[in-house]
Amino acid sequence: MTDGLFIAGDWGTTRLRLVLCGEAGILDRRAGPGIGQSDQPPERTFLSLSAEWRAQHGPLPAYFCGMVGSRMGWREVPYAPCPADPQSLGRGALAFGSEGCQVFLAPGLTCTNPLGAPDVMRGEETQILGALIAHPELAKGRHLLILPGTHSKWVELRDGTIHSFMTVPTGEIFALLRAHSTLARGAPEDAVPSAAGFAQGLARRQRLLPSLFETRTRQLIDGMPAADALGFLSGLLIGSEVESALESYPGFGEARLIGDPALSALYSEALSMHKLVSSELDGGDCAFAGLRSIFRKA
Amino acid sequence: MTDGLFIAGDWGTTRLRLVLCGEAGILDRRAGPGIGQSDQPPERTFLSLSAEWRAQHGPLPAYFCGMVGSRMGWREVPYAPCPADPQSLGRGALAFGSEGCQVFLAPGLTCTNPLGAPDVMRGEETQILGALIAHPELAKGRHLLILPGTHSKWVELRDGTIHSFMTVPTGEIFALLRAHSTLARGAPEDAVPSAAGFAQGLARRQRLLPSLFETRTRQLIDGMPAADALGFLSGLLIGSEVESALESYPGFGEARLIGDPALSALYSEALSMHKLVSSELDGGDCAFAGLRSIFRKA
Repeated sequence: MTDGLFIAGDWGTTRLRLVLCGEAGILDRRAGPGIGQSDQPPERTFLSLSAEWRAQHGPLPAYFCGMVGSRMGWREVPYAPCPADPQSLGRGALAFGSEGCQVFLAPGLTCTNPLGAPDVMRGEETQILGALIAHPELAKGRHLLILPGTHSKWVELRDGTIHSFMTVPTGEIFALLRAHSTLARGAPEDAVPSAAGFAQGLARRQRLLPSLFETRTRQLIDGMPAADALGFLSGLLIGSEVESALESYPGFGEARLIGDPALSALYSEALSMHKLVSSELDGGDCAFAGLRSIFRKA
Repeated sequence: MTDGLFIAGDWGTTRLRLVLCGEAGILDRRAGPGIGQSDQPPERTFLSLSAEWRAQHGPLPAYFCGMVGSRMGWREVPYAPCPADPQSLGRGALAFGSEGCQVFLAPGLTCTNPLGAPDVMRGEETQILGALIAHPELAKGRHLLILPGTHSKWVELRDGTIHSFMTVPTGEIFALLRAHSTLARGAPEDAVPSAAGFAQGLARRQRLLPSLFETRTRQLIDGMPAADALGFLSGLLIGSEVESALESYPGFGEARLIGDPALSALYSEALSMHKLVSSELDGGDCAFAGLRSIFRKA
């Protein structure tokens, strides 16, 4: 076994990103299917993707975060409670062996969100801890983080710990409406939501349900092009998310966005309507830095 | 041809209700597929379902309302504008012949809704006119009517005319989330949304998007049964609809509901949270009375 080497995996529902890490950083990368997207069990996927590394270096410790630790994953790891930091997540991890490798699965996180409801995340907590390492200015005081996506996460940091969070399934609703609803399903598959439509949707953000039907009638009555209608739907949904979530997270003048740059830009536009400044943090390899902080006490 | 006899059809997306009417009322009934649900063209469906009546009485006038007048229907009839009454809808109708029968299709209605958006209905306008005949107390003053369903319609009556309306696609969203979303799709097909869950969902009505995820986490974390989760989703959506729509239709102390009694009872519960009294109007045969008022000047 080579000292200091380890495998790290960010394994969500849509993909597996697997890397070989040394003390200096990422040495090699592999990509694989998301949890539930492959017919073979997660262990087999891991062993085949890491075969070369293991042949070269012998058994290596392997650290994972994400849905790999869910009921549908490799093994289920109970959620750890908030507030959370690298130490508490490390204590909640699950360890077991696989072909001589020690495998560690990070726990997900649970909290009672600001609406008083139970809430959960799996994977984002590790990405956030990684972002904290890259941005030490977030280690003191209260900060608002947003991870937009299928299930957007709104996160409050307090002195470098994850204090609470709230999930808003905006991306899932958009995808469902686009694929299946009478409101928007007519759009060509390659239609890209337009900026002009997005701005019109944002303007309706305080009346989500009654405005959804407008996506259809603007096309039917006003001849709105499909790209504008999709933009309208996107603006309406993201605008509503931001409007609602800020009621639960008031008093912030700034928000940090982690995620796809194009999506983050849309959130910036929605946040600016509430006078919030936003900045984008690079989320690309945050999960691997987060895994290192949880498991290597680096 | 027999004097006074006519055929009337309420032909929407999910079903055709066809009746033979005399001056005294409904004499006979047939049921058929909704627009878009059958492989054969609407004319063939009409001719085969009415064959016996035509054989017995000769060619009869046939009056229709609903999606039969849409682009996907028998022939497209342009929407008539609001405000609307039986006379204006009659002027907007389309007439043509079919195997000796004179066929008349009522126009749908369009308006600029209280949010400033274009809005449309096809079929409900005729049902509303029928309800007005059965409830002459609605012919004077301002009244709020709600027709809950896949696409709920909120309607303001002024002195017996349809002044404006607004569509809220709550039923469609519920069905989509139940069938396809990660939030609720695990429920058994025969699970019935529970009253206890509905009340909990109503309590969240002011935070629709962030509370949607609670449908999932209550099951995952709290072990909420599927029937309660569906009830929660239903209460959240219907509560949000009522909350939003009442902002567009303020100042009413009472609402009249037309539709399925079980669904109307849920709307009554949501309306009561805003101190609105509600009463249910029987909508069963309203469309046929409405067709008579549009076409027979009765």
